[in-house]
Amino acid sequence: MKVGFIGLGAMGSAMASNLIAAGHHVTVWNRSEAAAEKLASLGAKVASTPDRAAQGDVLHSMLANDQAVRDVFFDGGLLDAMDPGTVHVNHATISVALARQLAEEHASRGLGYVAAPVFGRPDVAAAGKLNMLVAGAPGAIEKARPLLETLAAKLWPMGESPERANVVKLAGNFMIVSAIESLAEASVLARAYGVDVADFIELMTSTLFASPVYQIYGKAIAEQRFTPPGFALPLGLKDVMLAQDAAHAERVPMPLAGVLRDSLLEALADGAEDMDLAALVRASARRANLDQRP
Amino acid sequence: MKVGFIGLGAMGSAMASNLIAAGHHVTVWNRSEAAAEKLASLGAKVASTPDRAAQGDVLHSMLANDQAVRDVFFDGGLLDAMDPGTVHVNHATISVALARQLAEEHASRGLGYVAAPVFGRPDVAAAGKLNMLVAGAPGAIEKARPLLETLAAKLWPMGESPERANVVKLAGNFMIVSAIESLAEASVLARAYGVDVADFIELMTSTLFASPVYQIYGKAIAEQRFTPPGFALPLGLKDVMLAQDAAHAERVPMPLAGVLRDSLLEALADGAEDMDLAALVRASARRANLDQRP
Amino acid sequence: MKVGFIGLGAMGSAMASNLIAAGHHVTVWNRSEAAAEKLASLGAKVASTPDRAAQGDVLHSMLANDQAVRDVFFDGGLLDAMDPGTVHVNHATISVALARQLAEEHASRGLGYVAAPVFGRPDVAAAGKLNMLVAGAPGAIEKARPLLETLAAKLWPMGESPERANVVKLAGNFMIVSAIESLAEASVLARAYGVDVADFIELMTSTLFASPVYQIYGKAIAEQRFTPPGFALPLGLKDVMLAQDAAHAERVPMPLAGVLRDSLLEALADGAEDMDLAALVRASARRANLDQRP
Amino acid sequence: MKVGFIGLGAMGSAMASNLIAAGHHVTVWNRSEAAAEKLASLGAKVASTPDRAAQGDVLHSMLANDQAVRDVFFDGGLLDAMDPGTVHVNHATISVALARQLAEEHASRGLGYVAAPVFGRPDVAAAGKLNMLVAGAPGAIEKARPLLETLAAKLWPMGESPERANVVKLAGNFMIVSAIESLAEASVLARAYGVDVADFIELMTSTLFASPVYQIYGKAIAEQRFTPPGFALPLGLKDVMLAQDAAHAERVPMPLAGVLRDSLLEALADGAEDMDLAALVRASARRANLDQRP
Repeated sequence: MKVGFIGLGAMGSAMASNLIAAGHHVTVWNRSEAAAEKLASLGAKVASTPDRAAQGDVLHSMLANDQAVRDVFFDGGLLDAMDPGTVHVNHATISVALARQLAEEHASRGLGYVAAPVFGRPDVAAAGKLNMLVAGAPGAIEKARPLLETLAAKLWPMGESPERANVVKLAGNFMIVSAIESLAEASVLARAYGVDVADFIELMTSTLFASPVYQIYGKAIAEQRFTPPGFALPLGLKDVMLAQDAAHAERVPMPLAGVLRDSLLEALADGAEDMDLAALVRASARRANLDQRP
Repeated sequence: MKVGFIGLGAMGSAMASNLIAAGHHVTVWNRSEAAAEKLASLGAKVASTPDRAAQGDVLHSMLANDQAVRDVFFDGGLLDAMDPGTVHVNHATISVALARQLAEEHASRGLGYVAAPVFGRPDVAAAGKLNMLVAGAPGAIEKARPLLETLAAKLWPMGESPERANVVKLAGNFMIVSAIESLAEASVLARAYGVDVADFIELMTSTLFASPVYQIYGKAIAEQRFTPPGFALPLGLKDVMLAQDAAHAERVPMPLAGVLRDSLLEALADGAEDMDLAALVRASARRANLDQRP
Repeated sequence: MKVGFIGLGAMGSAMASNLIAAGHHVTVWNRSEAAAEKLASLGAKVASTPDRAAQGDVLHSMLANDQAVRDVFFDGGLLDAMDPGTVHVNHATISVALARQLAEEHASRGLGYVAAPVFGRPDVAAAGKLNMLVAGAPGAIEKARPLLETLAAKLWPMGESPERANVVKLAGNFMIVSAIESLAEASVLARAYGVDVADFIELMTSTLFASPVYQIYGKAIAEQRFTPPGFALPLGLKDVMLAQDAAHAERVPMPLAGVLRDSLLEALADGAEDMDLAALVRASARRANLDQRP
Repeated sequence: MKVGFIGLGAMGSAMASNLIAAGHHVTVWNRSEAAAEKLASLGAKVASTPDRAAQGDVLHSMLANDQAVRDVFFDGGLLDAMDPGTVHVNHATISVALARQLAEEHASRGLGYVAAPVFGRPDVAAAGKLNMLVAGAPGAIEKARPLLETLAAKLWPMGESPERANVVKLAGNFMIVSAIESLAEASVLARAYGVDVADFIELMTSTLFASPVYQIYGKAIAEQRFTPPGFALPLGLKDVMLAQDAAHAERVPMPLAGVLRDSLLEALADGAEDMDLAALVRASARRANLDQRP
């Protein structure tokens, strides 16, 4: 198929590469050109403006956040420039409010729109093994399906309202941060009693909590290794706040989210700006003043 | 070996059965006799009083809570009646304060004492596949080791201070309740947007959170099946409060624990007295008034 | 002085009336005309567009929220239409982010800008007895001072950065909601033990907490009188969230604010959309299921 | 009247002095003798054992906490030694559980029992201006009334169940700690924006929150003066936990109480053991890392 791809960060680049490798004709655009050139070396055509990447059957976008999406599609005019036959597949983790607005703006212009946020880090994206949530009009999804199946280990249908895929993505990220905070508080309690944190975490993550999230962040906590970030702590805060916004819009109290927000803020106030989410444990230990004890 | 076993609830009975099956000479005692008789049919000798079960090499106890332990060992006089050569292995989930007191009281009488709380439900106990935390004097542990290895898939050494095994058990149970609350809040958020809760839970528990705790409680939440309880909600509250007590004693703030306590209380106030911990989702849905929405 | 006044809700109308009564030449504008006409009957000149109200020495604005301020000053073009000699005194409760943006936009156009949010309900405004926080360039404040003194019992200087007055206003409203939540939780606890809530509240608000906030909301709680709202619950939520935004921008954890947000959301989910902040007690009682107890 | 008084801390001594000054025949007992001797110089008779202070018409007790009450009345045997005609008036801040137990134990012995906890610091006690909550059998209260009126500015009847007076006392102390935490978080937010904390607190405590609690603790926060403690922070934590216990017994979620507990623990972990409750602001500032900012 003729495919466009906008947003070539670590995730987007890995995904676009897979589309190229699967034989599709991929035109890419990125705000900074270096990433686009790397894709060119794999066979992509590089567009000088976003609208030139949006002329194919499907346009994928994997932009960093709400602002980046607004800059390109609204302020940058891409929505108005898109070919009516093109289906836009939006992989970004965005707010539910923007998700709803995008759905409306595409519909009013007769453009196909699919929300397809993903779970998985760049290495998983490179392996084409993402878990991809998919929501939108059935026709649009069908058109994009071969591409989505190239990118994902599994597609998880979430219905026709695009924002459902986005709220599920935010709920999932909320669960990730909850798991880390829980591990952080528990390990600090154990440590206050003289238990070796690495022992504690090995126990938990090889038995009751033998799942990827606990193992990845548990290892980082046990090793006190917070850089480079896999999932940067400020991005975790952004996603918790997006979950809170979504909850607010539908009047859903989420007491855990409130705790997470403050714990993340506390970590940031103490220098975790460039650290991984696992640095939540620094906030837990700090509250108990563990590092200053005799 | 000559072994005593006190406390024959679902867990204790399964464990004592395994000791019998492994060829040990087991004398059992239980407050109500019915459970003891069942063990007799498997080959156990039934003692009419606790002290008669405490004459062997090792005395296991698996009592329900602090009060039951105090009733038997302190008020019932068992500590004073035990043979100095006997090692007491305490499998119960008890407070750190009682753990410390038990350690002192055994030591002052020259009795061996091992804290050996376990993770695993009765079916896991029956299969001899428990994860067992072990803390105490090395000599006492060595004496009991063949028995412990009969009961457990793995022994997790936690050092010489018995209370360390207990605090780890409480920290683990705190993590279990945290995981359920997180799943509850996330699924209520998704549901408020029209997402099918079973779909959401299948996604989460077969990908990022593909571990026993999430799968067991996730299934119950998806099916709205809260009885009979696997892990009764009031016991979950008891354990969260024991974790808070342990945290208080060492001045460790645990904001998640505070949220869990209130969410559990709310579920209890709304009729979850005989339900499973998964009924935390009822409190989440109630806060959002989901069941009353048009 | 020649004065403009934009935004004639209950507060704005009362304030503008006082300026008229003090002998100033007041030109008013309001989105809906009815309010403006009432002021006309007191002697105000009615402007057909905001910019015609902005030709005097000082322009007061008392708009409902960030959006209303943006609509008039940015999208409506008022900032560009204002006379450079005019000082804008903004009494609205707005976000710190907008406060900063307004300060910059006024400065870049050479316009004077004073943030002057107030504490006090409409009856206090009508009596000219507001407590007014004042921040901005000294020259601009001096020019407006006679007008501000007409409106306020006392001016509270908060320095030269306008957003300081706004953050203090938000911090104050956060304290108001905290006080109500505290009174709500305490009275529900007392009620659960059979204590008469009115007795409890009379005790507290005539001794330790004998201050306006506790007395006003305490009376409403004791009488279960939640309509009409004095301070509407959704506006309280808006202000708590603005306080959270301000805290987020400076990395300040505020755990009480997180609790307030959820308690307010819970009240809204249960039908408090048109009720007073005192309806927080309904959420407290609901969590304890007090109304359903035998 | 012939009166006994047990427990001569700062509060008890001031109260007993007032009873002496009012012409009653007061026999005192205290664990450490120094305090008793001071009362002797004012005219009290000093008893060598508690039961000798318990022979009059009314026995007042003002002991430090649950443990002290249990030591004297249960373990020390005072309950069994009391004259059946004596009414025991208990002024201590104790748990609701102990309050209920005391009510039962007095009743089963035919002893009169009145719970009469107080609000007010030692200087208020010395002035005879306490606010006193009173609950118990009407006959017992009537017998003690002249004494209570000597001690209090006002008696607040709370019904016949003694524990109601105690739960109201705990609810009041919970409100005090809530108020301080609210003031602490708000002032830290303001400070993060460069607002002078003393200015902020003067504003709040002379307008919306012009009541004793806010003024006393606000002054301490503004002056960063945390020693000597007026209301010691560990005692505040004790009372919050007693409120939580009372709430737990009746299944009442109290989310604010959970936040207070952790904030108090954090202050204690950071060295506030001998400080006033106002030191809660240190925990707030620490979470935001305010003291380490450039």
